[in-house]
Amino acid sequence: MIITLTTDFGLSDPFVGIMKGVILSIAPEARIVDITHDIRSYDVSEASFLVNSSFRYFPDGTIHAVIVDPGVGSMRRPIAARAKNHYFVAPDNGVLSYILHTERSEPPPSVYRITNEALFRKPVSHTFHGRDIFAPIAGYLARGAAIETVGEAITDFAIKSPPRPVIRGKKLVANVVHIDKFGNIVTNLRAEDLQPGFRIRVAGHEVSQLCRTFSHAEPGELCAVEGSTGYVEIALNQSSAANRLNVACGTEIEVETGMRIT
Amino acid sequence: MIITLTTDFGLSDPFVGIMKGVILSIAPEARIVDITHDIRSYDVSEASFLVNSSFRYFPDGTIHAVIVDPGVGSMRRPIAARAKNHYFVAPDNGVLSYILHTERSEPPPSVYRITNEALFRKPVSHTFHGRDIFAPIAGYLARGAAIETVGEAITDFAIKSPPRPVIRGKKLVANVVHIDKFGNIVTNLRAEDLQPGFRIRVAGHEVSQLCRTFSHAEPGELCAVEGSTGYVEIALNQSSAANRLNVACGTEIEVETGMRIT
Amino acid sequence: MIITLTTDFGLSDPFVGIMKGVILSIAPEARIVDITHDIRSYDVSEASFLVNSSFRYFPDGTIHAVIVDPGVGSMRRPIAARAKNHYFVAPDNGVLSYILHTERSEPPPSVYRITNEALFRKPVSHTFHGRDIFAPIAGYLARGAAIETVGEAITDFAIKSPPRPVIRGKKLVANVVHIDKFGNIVTNLRAEDLQPGFRIRVAGHEVSQLCRTFSHAEPGELCAVEGSTGYVEIALNQSSAANRLNVACGTEIEVETGMRIT
Repeated sequence: MIITLTTDFGLSDPFVGIMKGVILSIAPEARIVDITHDIRSYDVSEASFLVNSSFRYFPDGTIHAVIVDPGVGSMRRPIAARAKNHYFVAPDNGVLSYILHTERSEPPPSVYRITNEALFRKPVSHTFHGRDIFAPIAGYLARGAAIETVGEAITDFAIKSPPRPVIRGKKLVANVVHIDKFGNIVTNLRAEDLQPGFRIRVAGHEVSQLCRTFSHAEPGELCAVEGSTGYVEIALNQSSAANRLNVACGTEIEVETGMRIT
Repeated sequence: MIITLTTDFGLSDPFVGIMKGVILSIAPEARIVDITHDIRSYDVSEASFLVNSSFRYFPDGTIHAVIVDPGVGSMRRPIAARAKNHYFVAPDNGVLSYILHTERSEPPPSVYRITNEALFRKPVSHTFHGRDIFAPIAGYLARGAAIETVGEAITDFAIKSPPRPVIRGKKLVANVVHIDKFGNIVTNLRAEDLQPGFRIRVAGHEVSQLCRTFSHAEPGELCAVEGSTGYVEIALNQSSAANRLNVACGTEIEVETGMRIT
Repeated sequence: MIITLTTDFGLSDPFVGIMKGVILSIAPEARIVDITHDIRSYDVSEASFLVNSSFRYFPDGTIHAVIVDPGVGSMRRPIAARAKNHYFVAPDNGVLSYILHTERSEPPPSVYRITNEALFRKPVSHTFHGRDIFAPIAGYLARGAAIETVGEAITDFAIKSPPRPVIRGKKLVANVVHIDKFGNIVTNLRAEDLQPGFRIRVAGHEVSQLCRTFSHAEPGELCAVEGSTGYVEIALNQSSAANRLNVACGTEIEVETGMRIT
């Protein structure tokens, strides 16, 4: 059984290694794969977007632990969910918004509040639930425990940061959701939102061409590309668009014409 | 069998991957877990602290390779140790100080000087004993070799950087031992060292409250928190205490009243 | 079966985790080892050098995926190769130059253009062949597929960036091929290129001593060291030679006397 980890813990501290020790103590056969530990500190929205971009490339039944948890030790609830034939373990703070946002065509997710303390590592630290709650739950699920054993089903789980752009006047307003290592600006626009004649305005610049791949743009020219997970990225061929435009996660972008809302 | 790796090698070079290749060539079934490779270059004290914070979350019998080795290729000895039901492989430069520091209640560790060249990768490089000595030894231990086969037992192994704070006049003097990714200042004070009425002085600031968790402090207010491994951390809720106070590893901190030495 | 990954993807994005998901979906038993994901963006030469420095520490038959691919989505070909008893999967852009550069004493490599779309993940993204072509091919090879099934054999694969220094007048001209985490300047000179009386000129400085190990140099003194993979490195004991000399990958260095070309 595979367990993936997505956190804002970084790799300079032993946090991630410790979680793996706890998981392997419970489920010695688990395969653990790091998605990323470089989520911006406390950025629940970025984590939500990236987990949604990643989980589908793993086999059905994979367990995804997503720990971006600014409220650790406070009243926020830990949850476990079954959705899209995968399992997810996370704090109930919106970090699973993209996953738990029900679309018309899909069965609704099953979400459980984690309350079964018999499954926790004791004593439970006030500051590291990744080690004492989420890693053990992931381990027990990997060992075959039924998700219903973690606690009662709930329906009032948190959904934040609308996964889809919104209409404002005659414009479609989307957001920068991630800057990748190459400086490509990843948005929550999908390629099918763009109709011929579109104009994307981002940080005072306009982008009106959709290129097949980064290398199809002229050097120094901004273009939109359908990224590998279907979302529109603003890119510069072999250079950082984010540095050039000086944008960050959360920046609004507008599509002025040719928009379609799906 | 699990092997953990803690080094100052970073992840930009192939050093860590090469060590894993050597380990898997000897012990194909070994599970290898990275604790961290971002120990500050040559910082034996930080590595010693972090390994001690991490090893206990792994199953008994786990092998921990700890390679922070400014004297590689010189006369310093490589050692292997059995302590606290775990195995450790490291240079004899104090990087196992926290582990090998015998406490009253524990059986003493068994430490062996690694001299059995039959277990080394040849030729042995002068600059990369991680690859040629420590990785093979870890691999053979993972395959079931008895630790006594690595070389003779020794008792004069290096212990540096006192794991416990010291009394100076009417004050308890402790140290910053690690700055974590969130900017929390980790000290070698234990929560039980602080009695009601304590005042911690760090970088000209005073901290006199012990919060249950980071989110219990007011925004912008310094507080002490019992970190997840029992050591006291100086923190700012959702902000970097280390940046605010401008402290680094090794900085002294003083506890002025309410101290207890355990 | 072991699969290693060397890319310029970094670890902040989910790219590497996604590739592992694809590999494990095809070859659930594969062991995946990261060599590094911090190749300088688009630096085909550095990747070529580091893969050559790393592969030999893995068991014969290991599959090495090397994805530094500035031309992704354009006409450059994906290739798979069998060389030196290992397998390699990469774009045909010179990133395997060190591996495929045939030396006199070795059997020539077998190189295949990857064209068998039945092995690809569909739809194939224009921007992430690591996920849709290279990861699946690595997975199928790990599962035991014959390399001949990926496509037809070719002999016109790309070789760039001469692996060996060149003679210019009375000098041997070499290059900086990598800066390691400690600031050591790694060159493509081999220790056996240096004869007694050599003088290396790098960035206006002269180095004329070959030390056995870093710690044999005086503090603050530059020295040449035979690195752990047999290449000459310019180093400062416990300090960064690259910062001191302000050199980067690609910088030329000259050996003025005592040279030998092997």
